[in-house]
Amino acid sequence: MIKTTTMTPAAAPDISDLHDAALAAQVQHDLDHKTKPQGSLGRLESLALQLALIQRRRRPLLEAPQLVVFAADHGIAARGVSAFPAEVTRQMVANFLAGGAAVSVLARQHGIALTVVDCGVAHDFEPQPGLLRAKVPGAEHGTADASRGPAMSAAQRDEAITNGRRIVTGLPGNALLLGEMGIANTSAAALLMARLTGRPLADCVGRGTGLDDDGLARKLAVLQQTLDRHAGAVAPLDALAALGGLEIATMAGAVLQAAGEHRVIVVDGFITTAAVAVAAALAPAVLQRCVFSHCSAETGHERWLRHLGARSLLDLGLRLGEGSGAALAWPLLPAACRVLAEMASFESAGVSTRSD
Amino acid sequence: MIKTTTMTPAAAPDISDLHDAALAAQVQHDLDHKTKPQGSLGRLESLALQLALIQRRRRPLLEAPQLVVFAADHGIAARGVSAFPAEVTRQMVANFLAGGAAVSVLARQHGIALTVVDCGVAHDFEPQPGLLRAKVPGAEHGTADASRGPAMSAAQRDEAITNGRRIVTGLPGNALLLGEMGIANTSAAALLMARLTGRPLADCVGRGTGLDDDGLARKLAVLQQTLDRHAGAVAPLDALAALGGLEIATMAGAVLQAAGEHRVIVVDGFITTAAVAVAAALAPAVLQRCVFSHCSAETGHERWLRHLGARSLLDLGLRLGEGSGAALAWPLLPAACRVLAEMASFESAGVSTRSD
Repeated sequence: MIKTTTMTPAAAPDISDLHDAALAAQVQHDLDHKTKPQGSLGRLESLALQLALIQRRRRPLLEAPQLVVFAADHGIAARGVSAFPAEVTRQMVANFLAGGAAVSVLARQHGIALTVVDCGVAHDFEPQPGLLRAKVPGAEHGTADASRGPAMSAAQRDEAITNGRRIVTGLPGNALLLGEMGIANTSAAALLMARLTGRPLADCVGRGTGLDDDGLARKLAVLQQTLDRHAGAVAPLDALAALGGLEIATMAGAVLQAAGEHRVIVVDGFITTAAVAVAAALAPAVLQRCVFSHCSAETGHERWLRHLGARSLLDLGLRLGEGSGAALAWPLLPAACRVLAEMASFESAGVSTRSD
Repeated sequence: MIKTTTMTPAAAPDISDLHDAALAAQVQHDLDHKTKPQGSLGRLESLALQLALIQRRRRPLLEAPQLVVFAADHGIAARGVSAFPAEVTRQMVANFLAGGAAVSVLARQHGIALTVVDCGVAHDFEPQPGLLRAKVPGAEHGTADASRGPAMSAAQRDEAITNGRRIVTGLPGNALLLGEMGIANTSAAALLMARLTGRPLADCVGRGTGLDDDGLARKLAVLQQTLDRHAGAVAPLDALAALGGLEIATMAGAVLQAAGEHRVIVVDGFITTAAVAVAAALAPAVLQRCVFSHCSAETGHERWLRHLGARSLLDLGLRLGEGSGAALAWPLLPAACRVLAEMASFESAGVSTRSD
């Protein structure tokens, strides 16, 4: 008998390994002959190579970058695991759309299109520009409380993943920047981290939007109880349904689709890393398409990045989410492309090479 | 008798302490009431505060950023302290002006005006747009070999500092990004670091553009001999004249002038840090105006930043110079300004504050 997890829309993603020795050698040759000491642009050079491999061309070019904020509410918020009340999720969705949130400001600065996806916010929004409705039947207002039962059913999880796939299919451009909003979603992400990495929960749970010591202790206790309750949910998709949340599931689908379409995926902080980790558990080559924009101040993020073998570009003590770190790091990506496309070579510029 | 160093154009810079508790409290209040958990934008928030203090206004605004590449040659290059031949200095000046160097590409990406200053390149350039001539009488083609005598006379040093001051006075906008070019200038910078910080030379000397182990050993030996020869050149301006270089001296003048004019100064890597360190030795409040864009892979830079009490924004393993790191970090500065100017407050956006 086939397990239900192999029946999901995400189960057999066609995500190829990007290994292409010939292309990599060409791009490295180009980088090494630009008018600069070899390797002197550091991480920008490895980024240029990565972008070339994702796009399978010697001159990667980024077009119409799309920042998508996946928003949803979490039943577990009722257990007091966040410093902010759950209504902030819908209020911030309105703020994103009105242009007043950090991610709105930063996306505007860099000419990045911003779309907000309602994956299960506890509110019925009027249709409006910039807002996509991707609610899941039976979970229109968020997940169930994972501390008392599964956050989602398998069917709801699959629906969310399918929504994520569909959203990306319709996006212009070739770069997806991940953002998210959902009061209590560091709880869902920490639970997924503990389950997927096997690390103790204390290594995964942080202060989120700013819990004090008492709040952190309470959060840890609730999450330990939750993790124990779902001890049987070990496979990635089982863990996703049991622990939540809807925005993470939708984002996981988006990541799988974007990876399959050879889009560049710009990962933000702790929550978006959870979605990427779920997707990578299903198809490891997803990670080759991911640019990890920053290392969050949220406990666990640095460890999780290391676990995934990922290195972030920025380390600015950010812990806001929304996609704000992805937007802040964004200019480094076109910079890497421009180095390949626009810098002169030693030969073309008539610059002497090394003396030795 | 007044010492000659107190007679220089840089000796009594009028650079005020930026301490303004009332303004700092206002800006911090604004940051704390933006729609985000307090402090969740990390270093971007401290950057916003710094920019406000530099500009002495609650809403800092960056206008017409200017990246100036200070270029000069170094007599000590004849001692084989660089992996590249000295002619590369003039060749790269041509490359900057033709738009093919890394800094040309990155400045163009971000709409930063680029000016190259000939502070003593071993070449006589035709006048052309984007190039300023600021050669110093008697050192038109670079410094003397510091391993055999002083790199500059006191008069030449003062002339270079005055040139730097004058160049900044004529620049539009309110932000100066520092760049440099000069084969062997990591040698001059390492010597200045050793002298100004008192650290062993081995902590200050690195591979520059890419010396191998033998080359590094040779460089260290030459520089130790040079440092010993100028054991009496202890005061910052004396050290500057003895150890060089012309681009560092000119840049030090530029930094002093920019600081006095309350311009934002964006520091690049190891060499530009040398100029800032000299300026700060004369007027410590210079450092309050400096945004340290990145931590270079060049040995010594991280230590020097720590010595100056500075924290860099980026850490991308760059070691190119030119101002490339300053240009890469640049978008973070307007981002910090936009957070203050454009983000909604909890009140204006109708977002709930913390539950506790």
